Amino acid sequence: MESEYKDGIAWVEGAFCPISEARIPLLDWGFLRSDACQDTVSVWDGAFFRLDDHLERFERSFSRLRMICPYDRNSLRKLAIEAVRLTGFRAAYLQLIMTRGRPPIGSRDLRLANNSFFLFCVPYISIATPEQQEQGLHLIVSDIQRIPSTSVDPTIKTYHWLDFEMGLFEAYDRGGDTVILTDGKGDVTEGPGFNLFAVKEGKLLTPEAGCLDGMTRDTVFELATETNLECTLTSLSARDLCAMDELFISSTAGGLMPVAKVDGQSLGTSPIGPVTSRLRDLYWAKRRAGWHATLVDYTTTETAT
Amino acid sequence: MESEYKDGIAWVEGAFCPISEARIPLLDWGFLRSDACQDTVSVWDGAFFRLDDHLERFERSFSRLRMICPYDRNSLRKLAIEAVRLTGFRAAYLQLIMTRGRPPIGSRDLRLANNSFFLFCVPYISIATPEQQEQGLHLIVSDIQRIPSTSVDPTIKTYHWLDFEMGLFEAYDRGGDTVILTDGKGDVTEGPGFNLFAVKEGKLLTPEAGCLDGMTRDTVFELATETNLECTLTSLSARDLCAMDELFISSTAGGLMPVAKVDGQSLGTSPIGPVTSRLRDLYWAKRRAGWHATLVDYTTTETAT
Repeated sequence: MESEYKDGIAWVEGAFCPISEARIPLLDWGFLRSDACQDTVSVWDGAFFRLDDHLERFERSFSRLRMICPYDRNSLRKLAIEAVRLTGFRAAYLQLIMTRGRPPIGSRDLRLANNSFFLFCVPYISIATPEQQEQGLHLIVSDIQRIPSTSVDPTIKTYHWLDFEMGLFEAYDRGGDTVILTDGKGDVTEGPGFNLFAVKEGKLLTPEAGCLDGMTRDTVFELATETNLECTLTSLSARDLCAMDELFISSTAGGLMPVAKVDGQSLGTSPIGPVTSRLRDLYWAKRRAGWHATLVDYTTTETAT
Repeated sequence: MESEYKDGIAWVEGAFCPISEARIPLLDWGFLRSDACQDTVSVWDGAFFRLDDHLERFERSFSRLRMICPYDRNSLRKLAIEAVRLTGFRAAYLQLIMTRGRPPIGSRDLRLANNSFFLFCVPYISIATPEQQEQGLHLIVSDIQRIPSTSVDPTIKTYHWLDFEMGLFEAYDRGGDTVILTDGKGDVTEGPGFNLFAVKEGKLLTPEAGCLDGMTRDTVFELATETNLECTLTSLSARDLCAMDELFISSTAGGLMPVAKVDGQSLGTSPIGPVTSRLRDLYWAKRRAGWHATLVDYTTTETAT
């Protein structure tokens, strides 16, 4: 029997539904004002990765936006696990969402808005295709400035992505696979859904400001510590990227992914350098071994509320 | 008989529906990446104001985002008029929306996305309540920087509003009604849904950069020309706002609205100055007289497609 959740599942207005039916109200300010935040967790081999860390960051995000979630952490954890269980996905991409909702008719006071929670779970998504994982990504450096922290707090995972979207078009136009934005002063920040790491003379470097404190970025820090690899948070000039020994990106959507080219120029260790390769192998080996894992019990018949 | 459209109407996936049923797909990148643009037209006394100007700006916005609208301008005009006709609203707020949509399953290439068009029409919305129209608004100047033009083109009407939303919270905290953001260098830009004008020594001033080229802003320029009022596009220091003789805001949602106080300090001509008063009266008198008007024929039974 084919499951109604074979393409994915969503939690909308207090109930699970097939992903194809998942909708949000057109008038929700989560859409009309992009007044929303999210957090995305991955499931691999039937286990969540860092579920509680993601839930904690999600709570921090919506609190900073002064939203109130109708569910406590334990309920959110149960909903997330139940969503994956219902789909049966062994590898999944699960997103938790809070939106501003909307104030009562006649009011425009956002303090009166009824905040809403949504969740969706679809098959695992990777920024890099299997081929790009082997050949390395072609990264384009765009002059578009990442929305600065003086405008929108970059540590909140928001949907303010138009800078990324226009950057992606630029990357495609220039023959690239994806894009990295700068801070407007020549230093790189982050790309659409990922952080950037560089390897130079056996040491790891990553931008210290203007980017999300990504969960996979944190994970790379842990891997670095474990393997006695020095890792420095610093400013990283866009001009210097080509001179790096290795580059890779980190994301919940794909883990660690190698960069082979920047602005049409191949890196010295193209397609994939030894440090990147080692960290990536370690990342997946540790995940398979149950690191930071929350197992999904696919056999239970319990229903979450 | 009570109309099913008494609270409003929307055009969703090729058909009209009551506003309470209007939904967009949760996975539409118009939501998940705020990759969308809009334009909002007002209807007063049964007539659209500058409908074709709004349609032209809407087309410019979605073209700059490299979206393709399934409807040409004539069809959009017909849909807009039909929406208002079906509600019977004599005073309405109508928004045209384009979203990125979503690429086919398995792809993350935004060039392959099927762009979507939505429209909704609700009763007329004003930023200022009738009382605030009489007493003047209390404007708070926030240190939050308006998302800069180096990140997102401010002449495209987007939903990137989190800077405004956090600014509104700040305004409420400080006892204000609404907020104006700066450019990060001390000059004011725009507020949530409005442009700002100042009157100093009988002359009109308005920010020249970092803001939407608002339709009502353009309308104020026309009113200024008609009444031989000099109007200068310039930088406007946040510090100097209190020293202005008058301040008012302009928006499709409310027309021209007086500002009486800035950061708790009353302006000299509070609650409403003579130039603001004169321009506002002229704006409404001319609208009533059919200026830039497209009349809605509420009697026709024609159905748009």
